[in-house]
Amino acid sequence: MAMASFDISLELASVAGYDAALKEAQTHLDATMKSGIELLSIPGQTSDIDAAQKVVDGWCDKTSDVAVLGIGGSSLGGQALKTALEAFGRKGARVSFHDNPDPFSWEHFLKTADLKTTRFVVISKSGGTAETLMQALSAADVFDRLGASQYLKYHFAVVTEPKDSPLLKFARAIDCPVLDHPTGIGGRYSVLSVVGALPALLMGIDVKALRAGAAETLAEPSRAAEGAALHFALAQAGRLDQTVLWAYADRLSTLQGWWRQLWAESLGKDGKGSTPVGAVGPVDQHSQLQLFRDGPGKSLYTLLSTDMKGHGPAAPSKRAASLGIDYLAGKTMGDLVDAEVRATAKTLARNGRPVRRIHMPTIDARSVGALMMHFMLETIVMGRLMGVDPFDQPGVEEGKVLAREYLAG
Amino acid sequence: MAMASFDISLELASVAGYDAALKEAQTHLDATMKSGIELLSIPGQTSDIDAAQKVVDGWCDKTSDVAVLGIGGSSLGGQALKTALEAFGRKGARVSFHDNPDPFSWEHFLKTADLKTTRFVVISKSGGTAETLMQALSAADVFDRLGASQYLKYHFAVVTEPKDSPLLKFARAIDCPVLDHPTGIGGRYSVLSVVGALPALLMGIDVKALRAGAAETLAEPSRAAEGAALHFALAQAGRLDQTVLWAYADRLSTLQGWWRQLWAESLGKDGKGSTPVGAVGPVDQHSQLQLFRDGPGKSLYTLLSTDMKGHGPAAPSKRAASLGIDYLAGKTMGDLVDAEVRATAKTLARNGRPVRRIHMPTIDARSVGALMMHFMLETIVMGRLMGVDPFDQPGVEEGKVLAREYLAG
Repeated sequence: MAMASFDISLELASVAGYDAALKEAQTHLDATMKSGIELLSIPGQTSDIDAAQKVVDGWCDKTSDVAVLGIGGSSLGGQALKTALEAFGRKGARVSFHDNPDPFSWEHFLKTADLKTTRFVVISKSGGTAETLMQALSAADVFDRLGASQYLKYHFAVVTEPKDSPLLKFARAIDCPVLDHPTGIGGRYSVLSVVGALPALLMGIDVKALRAGAAETLAEPSRAAEGAALHFALAQAGRLDQTVLWAYADRLSTLQGWWRQLWAESLGKDGKGSTPVGAVGPVDQHSQLQLFRDGPGKSLYTLLSTDMKGHGPAAPSKRAASLGIDYLAGKTMGDLVDAEVRATAKTLARNGRPVRRIHMPTIDARSVGALMMHFMLETIVMGRLMGVDPFDQPGVEEGKVLAREYLAG
Repeated sequence: MAMASFDISLELASVAGYDAALKEAQTHLDATMKSGIELLSIPGQTSDIDAAQKVVDGWCDKTSDVAVLGIGGSSLGGQALKTALEAFGRKGARVSFHDNPDPFSWEHFLKTADLKTTRFVVISKSGGTAETLMQALSAADVFDRLGASQYLKYHFAVVTEPKDSPLLKFARAIDCPVLDHPTGIGGRYSVLSVVGALPALLMGIDVKALRAGAAETLAEPSRAAEGAALHFALAQAGRLDQTVLWAYADRLSTLQGWWRQLWAESLGKDGKGSTPVGAVGPVDQHSQLQLFRDGPGKSLYTLLSTDMKGHGPAAPSKRAASLGIDYLAGKTMGDLVDAEVRATAKTLARNGRPVRRIHMPTIDARSVGALMMHFMLETIVMGRLMGVDPFDQPGVEEGKVLAREYLAG
């Protein structure tokens, strides 16, 4: 039997209502698995990867930089994949994500980029995202002003739904490649689709392994029901103002941005929801642990780790001994982190905080795909338990309308 | 009269208990200002900057990279200053902060750094921080193995308290420069001291202006009492599970990491406290706004902005019109962000969320220094109102002890 991509263990006293919640969660999970939502079919697809690969192949030799333009679900998944899976010191095009529309950062990028070898991937499901259109149009404007409009088609690729929109019009006007954003998958659930796959391919990430990992979770999805039930039982008991994802590895530190949107936007509605908080370990032991251990403590703490013992540079024994820090002598940095994640879990649990540990022996495309699908299922089931729709986001419209008014005024 | 470094305005209905809280907060603020704590004297100091400048001058020509080793309060302030104040595309040494002890990241850094032109600034108040010592010793080990131990003194500088500790022993053993960490200032309040000033000088940041801004706040500190009173009144009313600092500028996006430690570690104790949450705008409108507007809403939302109107690249009118997005035609990216921050504030307020806006017309050393001192005073006064000690962190010791046990076992 293949080793699991990740293990889950709990360090907590019993949570009232867990058994009942789990039963209900399993029912919702079963219903979700049978629901035919498009998310579930993504791991089995290949033709969309082939289409994305064509774009990558077309760009391969003459590309120094790829700027991914998109916001929210059009960017956070790709960012998570980059941090987790792009090889250290990899040769090849530099892929950067431009999600926040900061005028000074963007101006600096456009001024300093070598546009002859820079490509732009523009991602917007609706094709009408103001921030992304502003980026794409201002980038295209640089080409236009240089009299290079005819080359735009070699420098842009667009990912959007196959229906009339400003972005699709733009793509047609410049005649650049267009990849279809799945119509049945919202941005925050789209990382395994072409939305995450195109940037991943550009970064040399094994997208097939990513999807194989996701398929592994779909084949054995029950832990998603357990995770949702745990959250729900805590919420019902008034013990879930926040849920903390604490990653003990730099490679997992960006995954949280993706997960934060997934949790916040799927579940924060109808006066319900809990705030997803990202933490990084060990560093946040020196920043957030005081609050987590001794504050109100209405949170679940999920500590995410990988095998580190024996890895990394070591503190040389002789020098350590001479400084009076024998406890570090000959220990590697990985030994230290391994001890710290265990100590933090134990410390929180001793102080009555519910702790869940998720351990991924290896961080690779397969395990990351498995974990991402796990979090997506867990979120969907949590939404069902809470009685909210995990797929809509009605609360963001008001601000968009108001921003257009202010922009016009 | 000089323009204020930042303006504060509120968009919220009246908060029950605010007036009484404010009166009490003013008393605590007055007491703090008269307390003689070392933090208050930092803006008036110069000799410590001169000492730091000597280190910088000694390194100036032959330095490509400076790696700042430190964790928590020994790093987050410097990181905030880098993002906020280092000039885009600045020539000079690349200053990087290595706070999280990840074995794979650190190994990669040591393997790829050009050690001949790399310097290490090692910061630990106590001089006994395990993670930082591990970094320093493993870096020194590379020199030792190359038979270059005699050059260590040119490559390291140490910031620590003037008392016996492993780090001070290390500095003496290699004979490198040592700068005194103020004994009366904890890490999370140390950004304006040499702890932040040495990295700032290395990045070409005007430390005197930074301190002048802090002095400006000390001269007119009353807004810190108002901010603390607002938080406290909300907490008393059961409306402060979180407090959100939402920065509408890339340059202010790292300030939150510093502020999160300040708030969490100062106030999260005795079962009290609120979780500091960082958000970045406009990007988090596409990630967190749904939850912030429609979730439980037990939070204060502080929107932090700067002048952006008219700045940055624009969407060209002709192309915007041809795509059917006239509302963007001729608008700059700064116009869009300006409209969005106003719209977000209004949307949250309309939905009954308390909103505070802090607007810094200019992000420069003076305004950042003023704002940082404001947040420090606000936190101290909040601690006094809550009846907790804003200067201790008793909850982090247990995990340290346990980690040493696990490391030995």
